[in-house]
Amino acid sequence: MLIDRLNWRYATKKMNPDKVVAEDKVERILEAVRLAPTSSGLQQFEVIVVTNKDIRAKIRAIAWDQAQVTDASHLVVFAAWDNYTADRINGMFDLVNDERGFRNEGWEAYRQMLLNTYPQRDAQTNFEHAARQAYVGLGIALTAAAFEEVDATPMEGFDPAALDEILDLRARGLRSVVMMPLGYRADEGDWLVNLKKVRRPAADFISRID
Amino acid sequence: MLIDRLNWRYATKKMNPDKVVAEDKVERILEAVRLAPTSSGLQQFEVIVVTNKDIRAKIRAIAWDQAQVTDASHLVVFAAWDNYTADRINGMFDLVNDERGFRNEGWEAYRQMLLNTYPQRDAQTNFEHAARQAYVGLGIALTAAAFEEVDATPMEGFDPAALDEILDLRARGLRSVVMMPLGYRADEGDWLVNLKKVRRPAADFISRID
Repeated sequence: MLIDRLNWRYATKKMNPDKVVAEDKVERILEAVRLAPTSSGLQQFEVIVVTNKDIRAKIRAIAWDQAQVTDASHLVVFAAWDNYTADRINGMFDLVNDERGFRNEGWEAYRQMLLNTYPQRDAQTNFEHAARQAYVGLGIALTAAAFEEVDATPMEGFDPAALDEILDLRARGLRSVVMMPLGYRADEGDWLVNLKKVRRPAADFISRID
Repeated sequence: MLIDRLNWRYATKKMNPDKVVAEDKVERILEAVRLAPTSSGLQQFEVIVVTNKDIRAKIRAIAWDQAQVTDASHLVVFAAWDNYTADRINGMFDLVNDERGFRNEGWEAYRQMLLNTYPQRDAQTNFEHAARQAYVGLGIALTAAAFEEVDATPMEGFDPAALDEILDLRARGLRSVVMMPLGYRADEGDWLVNLKKVRRPAADFISRID
Protein backbone atom coordinates (compact mmCIF):
# COMPACT_ATOMS: atom_id res chain seq x y z
CA MET A 1 0.00 0.00 0.00
CA LEU A 2 2.66 2.51 1.08
CA ILE A 3 5.01 1.03 -1.53
CA ASP A 4 2.29 1.46 -4.18
CA ARG A 5 1.86 5.10 -3.27
CA LEU A 6 5.62 5.69 -3.38
CA ASN A 7 5.81 4.05 -6.79
CA TRP A 8 2.91 6.21 -8.01
CA ARG A 9 4.53 9.48 -7.00
CA TYR A 10 7.22 11.21 -9.03
CA ALA A 11 8.83 14.62 -9.15
CA THR A 12 6.14 16.24 -11.27
CA LYS A 13 7.70 18.57 -13.83
CA LYS A 14 4.52 20.04 -15.30
CA MET A 15 1.52 20.81 -13.15
CA ASN A 16 -1.94 21.63 -14.50
CA PRO A 17 -2.41 25.33 -13.65
CA ASP A 18 -6.21 24.98 -13.70
CA LYS A 19 -6.49 22.33 -11.00
CA VAL A 20 -6.54 23.28 -7.33
CA VAL A 21 -5.80 20.88 -4.48
CA ALA A 22 -8.78 20.74 -2.12
CA GLU A 23 -8.23 22.38 1.23
CA ASP A 24 -8.94 19.22 3.24
CA LYS A 25 -6.18 17.41 1.39
CA VAL A 26 -3.73 20.25 2.01
CA GLU A 27 -4.70 20.21 5.69
CA ARG A 28 -4.01 16.49 6.04
CA ILE A 29 -0.64 16.79 4.29
CA LEU A 30 0.38 19.65 6.58
CA GLU A 31 -0.89 17.79 9.64
CA ALA A 32 1.35 14.86 8.70
CA VAL A 33 4.29 17.26 8.59
CA ARG A 34 3.33 18.71 11.95
CA LEU A 35 3.43 15.19 13.39
CA ALA A 36 6.92 14.56 11.99
CA PRO A 37 9.40 13.51 14.66
CA THR A 38 12.31 15.90 15.12
CA SER A 39 15.53 15.82 17.10
CA SER A 40 14.76 16.23 20.82
CA GLY A 41 11.18 17.00 19.79
CA LEU A 42 12.12 20.62 19.12
CA GLN A 43 10.26 20.96 15.79
CA GLN A 44 13.06 23.19 14.61
CA PHE A 45 11.36 24.13 11.35
CA GLU A 46 8.14 25.69 10.08
CA VAL A 47 6.19 25.52 6.86
CA ILE A 48 4.96 28.49 4.85
CA VAL A 49 2.17 27.79 2.36
CA VAL A 50 2.11 30.25 -0.49
CA THR A 51 -0.91 30.48 -2.77
CA ASN A 52 -0.50 34.18 -3.59
CA LYS A 53 0.23 34.43 -7.30
CA ASP A 54 2.40 37.56 -7.19
CA ILE A 55 4.64 36.13 -4.49
CA ARG A 56 4.93 32.86 -6.35
CA ALA A 57 5.91 34.70 -9.53
CA LYS A 58 8.72 36.34 -7.58
CA ILE A 59 9.79 32.96 -6.20
CA ARG A 60 9.75 31.38 -9.65
CA ALA A 61 12.17 34.07 -10.81
CA ILE A 62 14.74 32.97 -8.21
CA ALA A 63 14.03 29.25 -8.78
CA TRP A 64 15.42 28.68 -12.26
CA ASP A 65 12.03 29.68 -13.70
CA GLN A 66 10.62 26.27 -12.76
CA ALA A 67 6.97 26.32 -13.80
CA GLN A 68 5.68 24.16 -10.94
CA VAL A 69 6.21 27.10 -8.59
CA THR A 70 3.35 28.99 -10.21
CA ASP A 71 1.42 26.16 -11.94
CA ALA A 72 0.86 24.21 -8.73
CA SER A 73 -1.99 25.43 -6.56
CA HIS A 74 0.04 25.53 -3.34
CA LEU A 75 3.72 26.08 -2.73
CA VAL A 76 4.95 24.69 0.60
CA VAL A 77 8.23 26.18 1.82
CA PHE A 78 10.15 24.38 4.56
CA ALA A 79 12.16 26.86 6.66
CA ALA A 80 14.45 25.85 9.51
CA TRP A 81 15.50 27.74 12.62
CA ASP A 82 18.56 29.84 11.85
CA ASN A 83 20.01 28.95 15.26
CA TYR A 84 19.21 27.33 18.58
CA THR A 85 18.51 29.76 21.40
CA ALA A 86 17.62 29.22 25.05
CA ASP A 87 14.21 30.79 24.34
CA ARG A 88 13.45 28.34 21.57
CA ILE A 89 14.57 25.31 23.59
CA ASN A 90 12.70 26.44 26.69
CA GLY A 91 9.64 27.23 24.62
CA MET A 92 9.36 23.66 23.45
CA PHE A 93 10.18 22.05 26.80
CA ASP A 94 7.67 24.33 28.56
CA LEU A 95 5.00 23.42 26.01
CA VAL A 96 5.66 19.73 26.62
CA ASN A 97 5.34 20.22 30.39
CA ASP A 98 2.13 22.24 29.95
CA GLU A 99 0.56 19.66 27.67
CA ARG A 100 1.54 16.70 29.82
CA GLY A 101 0.63 18.46 33.04
CA PHE A 102 3.79 17.62 34.98
CA ARG A 103 7.55 18.08 35.12
CA ASN A 104 9.78 15.07 34.75
CA GLU A 105 13.23 15.06 36.31
CA GLY A 106 14.93 13.24 33.47
CA TRP A 107 13.27 15.52 30.94
CA GLU A 108 14.44 18.61 32.84
CA ALA A 109 18.00 17.26 32.97
CA TYR A 110 17.78 16.73 29.22
CA ARG A 111 16.60 20.33 28.79
CA GLN A 112 19.65 21.54 30.73
CA MET A 113 21.95 19.40 28.62
CA LEU A 114 20.57 21.00 25.45
CA LEU A 115 20.75 24.49 26.99
CA ASN A 116 24.38 23.84 27.88
CA THR A 117 25.22 22.60 24.39
CA TYR A 118 23.18 24.03 21.51
CA PRO A 119 23.15 27.81 22.04
CA GLN A 120 26.96 27.79 22.44
CA ARG A 121 27.55 26.18 19.07
CA ASP A 122 27.98 28.25 15.93
CA ALA A 123 24.79 29.25 14.12
CA GLN A 124 25.66 27.42 10.91
CA THR A 125 26.10 24.08 12.70
CA ASN A 126 22.79 24.59 14.43
CA PHE A 127 21.04 25.59 11.22
CA GLU A 128 22.38 22.53 9.40
CA HIS A 129 21.06 20.34 12.19
CA ALA A 130 17.65 22.03 12.08
CA ALA A 131 17.58 21.78 8.28
CA ARG A 132 18.04 18.01 8.47
CA GLN A 133 14.86 17.78 10.55
CA ALA A 134 12.99 19.71 7.87
CA TYR A 135 13.92 16.90 5.50
CA VAL A 136 12.20 14.39 7.78
CA GLY A 137 9.15 16.60 7.34
CA LEU A 138 9.70 16.66 3.59
CA GLY A 139 9.87 12.86 3.41
CA ILE A 140 6.61 12.57 5.32
CA ALA A 141 4.98 15.36 3.29
CA LEU A 142 5.81 13.65 -0.01
CA THR A 143 4.38 10.40 1.33
CA ALA A 144 1.25 12.13 2.64
CA ALA A 145 0.74 13.88 -0.71
CA ALA A 146 1.01 10.53 -2.50
CA PHE A 147 -1.65 9.10 -0.19
CA GLU A 148 -3.93 12.00 -1.11
CA GLU A 149 -3.18 11.37 -4.81
CA VAL A 150 -1.76 14.87 -4.96
CA ASP A 151 1.35 15.51 -7.01
CA ALA A 152 4.31 17.01 -5.23
CA THR A 153 7.84 17.88 -6.28
CA PRO A 154 10.75 18.24 -3.88
CA MET A 155 12.68 21.32 -5.01
CA GLU A 156 16.10 22.49 -3.88
CA GLY A 157 16.77 24.47 -7.04
CA PHE A 158 16.33 28.03 -5.82
CA ASP A 159 18.34 30.83 -4.25
CA PRO A 160 17.68 30.39 -0.50
CA ALA A 161 18.87 33.90 0.46
CA ALA A 162 16.57 35.44 -2.15
CA LEU A 163 13.65 33.31 -0.98
CA ASP A 164 14.36 34.32 2.62
CA GLU A 165 14.07 37.92 1.49
CA ILE A 166 10.86 37.45 -0.49
CA LEU A 167 9.18 35.75 2.48
CA ASP A 168 10.92 37.92 5.09
CA LEU A 169 12.10 34.77 6.86
CA ARG A 170 15.26 36.08 8.51
CA ALA A 171 13.21 38.51 10.61
CA ARG A 172 11.46 35.42 12.01
CA GLY A 173 14.74 33.63 12.69
CA LEU A 174 14.14 31.21 9.81
CA ARG A 175 16.06 30.20 6.69
CA SER A 176 14.48 28.47 3.72
CA VAL A 177 15.61 24.90 3.12
CA VAL A 178 13.48 23.17 0.51
CA MET A 179 10.19 23.74 -1.35
CA MET A 180 7.34 21.43 -2.35
CA PRO A 181 4.67 22.55 -4.83
CA LEU A 182 1.36 20.69 -4.47
CA GLY A 183 -0.90 20.27 -7.48
CA TYR A 184 -1.92 17.93 -10.24
CA ARG A 185 0.17 16.73 -13.15
CA ALA A 186 -0.69 18.25 -16.51
CA ASP A 187 -2.34 16.04 -19.12
CA GLU A 188 0.61 16.56 -21.41
CA GLY A 189 4.01 18.19 -21.57
CA ASP A 190 5.72 16.47 -18.63
CA TRP A 191 8.90 14.82 -19.94
CA LEU A 192 9.30 12.71 -16.80
CA VAL A 193 5.79 11.35 -16.22
CA ASN A 194 6.07 8.28 -18.45
CA LEU A 195 9.70 7.46 -17.74
CA LYS A 196 10.66 4.58 -15.51
CA LYS A 197 11.47 5.42 -11.91
CA VAL A 198 15.09 4.37 -11.44
CA ARG A 199 16.68 3.42 -8.14
CA ARG A 200 19.83 1.44 -7.43
CA PRO A 201 19.12 -2.26 -6.95
CA ALA A 202 18.61 -3.25 -3.32
CA ALA A 203 21.97 -5.05 -3.39
CA ASP A 204 23.70 -1.72 -4.08
CA PHE A 205 21.69 0.23 -1.54
CA ILE A 206 21.20 -2.09 1.44
CA SER A 207 23.87 -4.10 3.20
CA ARG A 208 23.46 -6.48 6.11
CA ILE A 209 25.61 -7.35 9.05
CA ASP A 210 24.11 -10.53 10.49
CA MET B 1 -5.13 6.73 7.86
CA LEU B 2 -1.59 8.09 7.47
CA ILE B 3 -2.32 10.57 10.26
CA ASP B 4 -3.51 7.70 12.46
CA ARG B 5 -0.28 5.83 11.87
CA LEU B 6 1.81 8.92 12.62
CA ASN B 7 -0.12 9.45 15.84
CA TRP B 8 0.40 5.81 16.78
CA ARG B 9 4.15 5.91 16.40
CA TYR B 10 6.52 7.39 18.98
CA ALA B 11 10.22 7.32 19.70
CA THR B 12 10.22 3.99 21.52
CA LYS B 13 12.54 4.10 24.49
CA LYS B 14 12.29 0.48 25.60
CA MET B 15 12.07 -2.33 23.09
CA ASN B 16 11.14 -5.92 23.94
CA PRO B 17 14.38 -7.86 23.41
CA ASP B 18 12.47 -11.11 22.81
CA LYS B 19 10.42 -9.94 19.85
CA VAL B 20 11.81 -10.03 16.34
CA VAL B 21 10.44 -8.04 13.42
CA ALA B 22 9.43 -10.40 10.62
CA GLU B 23 11.66 -10.30 7.57
CA ASP B 24 8.86 -9.36 5.16
CA LYS B 25 8.11 -6.28 7.25
CA VAL B 26 11.77 -5.27 7.29
CA GLU B 27 11.91 -5.75 3.53
CA ARG B 28 8.93 -3.48 2.93
CA ILE B 29 10.32 -0.77 5.21
CA LEU B 30 13.66 -0.88 3.40
CA GLU B 31 11.95 -0.88 0.00
CA ALA B 32 10.13 2.30 0.99
CA VAL B 33 13.49 3.86 1.81
CA ARG B 34 14.93 2.70 -1.50
CA LEU B 35 12.05 4.48 -3.25
CA ALA B 36 12.71 7.73 -1.39
CA PRO B 37 13.23 10.67 -3.72
CA THR B 38 16.65 12.28 -3.47
CA SER B 39 18.25 15.40 -4.92
CA SER B 40 18.89 14.90 -8.65
CA GLY B 41 17.92 11.27 -8.12
CA LEU B 42 21.44 10.46 -6.96
CA GLN B 43 20.44 8.32 -3.95
CA GLN B 44 23.41 9.73 -2.10
CA PHE B 45 23.03 7.47 0.91
CA GLU B 46 22.87 3.78 1.81
CA VAL B 47 21.38 1.78 4.64
CA ILE B 48 23.20 -0.80 6.70
CA VAL B 49 21.02 -3.24 8.63
CA VAL B 50 22.76 -4.65 11.67
CA THR B 51 21.34 -7.68 13.46
CA ASN B 52 24.69 -9.02 14.70
CA LYS B 53 24.64 -8.83 18.48
CA ASP B 54 28.35 -8.23 19.03
CA ILE B 55 28.44 -5.35 16.60
CA ARG B 56 25.34 -3.85 18.14
CA ALA B 57 26.88 -4.08 21.60
CA LYS B 58 29.84 -2.09 20.29
CA ILE B 59 27.48 0.47 18.78
CA ARG B 60 25.51 0.78 22.00
CA ALA B 61 28.74 1.66 23.78
CA ILE B 62 29.24 4.69 21.52
CA ALA B 63 25.54 5.64 21.60
CA TRP B 64 25.05 6.77 25.19
CA ASP B 65 24.30 3.16 26.16
CA GLN B 66 20.81 3.47 24.68
CA ALA B 67 19.16 0.09 25.13
CA GLN B 68 17.15 0.16 21.91
CA VAL B 69 20.38 -0.41 19.97
CA THR B 70 20.61 -3.96 21.31
CA ASP B 71 16.99 -4.62 22.39
CA ALA B 72 15.52 -3.95 18.96
CA SER B 73 15.77 -6.83 16.52
CA HIS B 74 17.22 -4.73 13.68
CA LEU B 75 19.35 -1.61 13.72
CA VAL B 76 19.14 0.42 10.51
CA VAL B 77 22.03 2.82 9.98
CA PHE B 78 21.68 5.59 7.40
CA ALA B 79 25.05 6.53 5.92
CA ALA B 80 25.56 9.30 3.37
CA TRP B 81 28.17 9.72 0.68
CA ASP B 82 31.21 11.47 2.13
CA ASN B 83 31.58 13.49 -1.08
CA TYR B 84 30.32 13.82 -4.64
CA THR B 85 32.63 12.42 -7.26
CA ALA B 86 32.37 12.23 -11.04
CA ASP B 87 32.23 8.43 -10.75
CA ARG B 88 29.28 8.53 -8.39
CA ILE B 89 27.36 11.05 -10.48
CA ASN B 90 28.09 9.20 -13.72
CA GLY B 91 27.18 5.89 -12.10
CA MET B 92 23.68 7.08 -11.33
CA PHE B 93 23.12 8.85 -14.66
CA ASP B 94 24.39 5.80 -16.56
CA LEU B 95 22.06 3.55 -14.57
CA VAL B 96 19.13 5.81 -15.44
CA ASN B 97 20.03 5.68 -19.14
CA ASP B 98 20.42 1.90 -19.02
CA GLU B 99 17.10 1.38 -17.27
CA ARG B 100 15.20 3.76 -19.53
CA GLY B 101 16.91 2.54 -22.66
CA PHE B 102 17.79 5.90 -24.15
CA ARG B 103 19.80 9.07 -23.66
CA ASN B 104 17.97 12.36 -23.23
CA GLU B 105 19.67 15.59 -24.24
CA GLY B 106 18.28 17.63 -21.34
CA TRP B 107 19.23 14.89 -18.90
CA GLU B 108 22.78 14.79 -20.28
CA ALA B 109 23.08 18.57 -19.95
CA TYR B 110 21.93 18.23 -16.37
CA ARG B 111 24.59 15.56 -15.76
CA GLN B 112 27.25 17.95 -17.07
CA MET B 113 25.97 20.73 -14.86
CA LEU B 114 26.31 18.48 -11.80
CA LEU B 115 29.75 17.26 -12.94
CA ASN B 116 30.83 20.88 -13.29
CA THR B 117 29.53 21.82 -9.85
CA TYR B 118 29.51 19.11 -7.21
CA PRO B 119 32.96 17.47 -7.37
CA GLN B 120 34.59 20.92 -7.15
CA ARG B 121 32.88 21.83 -3.90
CA ASP B 122 34.41 20.99 -0.54
CA ALA B 123 33.66 17.53 0.83
CA GLN B 124 31.88 18.78 3.94
CA THR B 125 29.35 20.81 1.92
CA ASN B 126 28.71 17.80 -0.26
CA PHE B 127 28.37 15.47 2.71
CA GLU B 128 25.89 17.84 4.41
CA HIS B 129 23.82 17.88 1.24
CA ALA B 130 23.91 14.10 0.98
CA ALA B 131 23.05 13.76 4.68
CA ARG B 132 19.89 15.82 4.18
CA GLN B 133 18.70 13.31 1.62
CA ALA B 134 19.21 10.51 4.14
CA TYR B 135 16.70 12.33 6.34
CA VAL B 136 14.09 12.12 3.57
CA GLY B 137 14.72 8.38 3.74
CA LEU B 138 14.42 8.47 7.52
CA GLY B 139 11.06 10.27 7.33
CA ILE B 140 9.75 7.67 4.93
CA ALA B 141 11.25 4.79 6.95
CA LEU B 142 9.54 5.94 10.14
CA THR B 143 6.24 6.22 8.28
CA ALA B 144 6.69 2.80 6.68
CA ALA B 145 7.50 1.24 10.05
CA ALA B 146 4.33 2.76 11.52
CA PHE B 147 2.31 1.23 8.68
CA GLU B 148 3.82 -2.16 9.52
CA GLU B 149 2.98 -1.59 13.21
CA VAL B 150 6.67 -1.86 13.92
CA ASP B 151 8.23 0.45 16.50
CA ALA B 152 11.10 2.62 15.36
CA THR B 153 13.17 5.28 17.05
CA PRO B 154 15.09 7.98 15.18
CA MET B 155 18.48 8.26 16.91
CA GLU B 156 21.13 10.91 16.46
CA GLY B 157 22.69 10.34 19.87
CA PHE B 158 25.86 8.51 18.95
CA ASP B 159 29.45 9.25 17.99
CA PRO B 160 29.39 9.22 14.18
CA ALA B 161 33.15 8.87 13.77
CA ALA B 162 33.17 5.87 16.11
CA LEU B 163 30.24 4.30 14.29
CA ASP B 164 32.00 4.84 10.97
CA GLU B 165 34.92 2.91 12.39
CA ILE B 166 32.85 0.03 13.78
CA LEU B 167 31.09 -0.43 10.44
CA ASP B 168 34.18 0.45 8.36
CA LEU B 169 32.14 3.04 6.49
CA ARG B 170 34.88 5.47 5.50
CA ALA B 171 36.53 2.78 3.36
CA ARG B 172 33.27 2.70 1.40
CA GLY B 173 33.14 6.49 1.09
CA LEU B 174 30.27 6.72 3.56
CA ARG B 175 29.67 8.55 6.82
CA SER B 176 26.98 7.60 9.33
CA VAL B 177 24.19 10.12 9.74
CA VAL B 178 21.33 8.70 11.79
CA MET B 179 20.17 5.33 13.15
CA MET B 180 16.76 3.69 13.45
CA PRO B 181 16.24 0.57 15.58
CA LEU B 182 13.26 -1.55 14.52
CA GLY B 183 11.48 -3.69 17.08
CA TYR B 184 8.51 -3.87 19.39
CA ARG B 185 7.84 -1.75 22.46
CA ALA B 186 8.33 -3.52 25.79
CA ASP B 187 5.24 -4.31 27.85
CA GLU B 188 6.58 -2.12 30.63
CA GLY B 189 9.41 0.20 31.49
CA ASP B 190 9.08 2.78 28.69
CA TRP B 191 8.73 6.21 30.32
CA LEU B 192 7.50 7.79 27.09
CA VAL B 193 4.91 5.31 25.83
CA ASN B 194 1.93 6.67 27.75
CA LEU B 195 2.83 10.35 27.56
CA LYS B 196 1.00 12.68 25.21
CA LYS B 197 2.67 13.40 21.89
CA VAL B 198 3.31 17.15 21.91
CA ARG B 199 3.64 19.32 18.83
CA ARG B 200 3.32 23.07 18.43
CA PRO B 201 -0.22 24.09 17.47
CA ALA B 202 -0.74 24.44 13.73
CA ALA B 203 -0.94 28.23 14.15
CA ASP B 204 2.65 28.25 15.44
CA PHE B 205 3.94 25.84 12.81
CA ILE B 206 2.14 26.71 9.58
CA SER B 207 1.74 30.16 8.07
CA ARG B 208 -0.12 31.12 4.92
CA ILE B 209 0.48 33.73 2.26
CA ASP B 210 -2.77 33.90 0.30
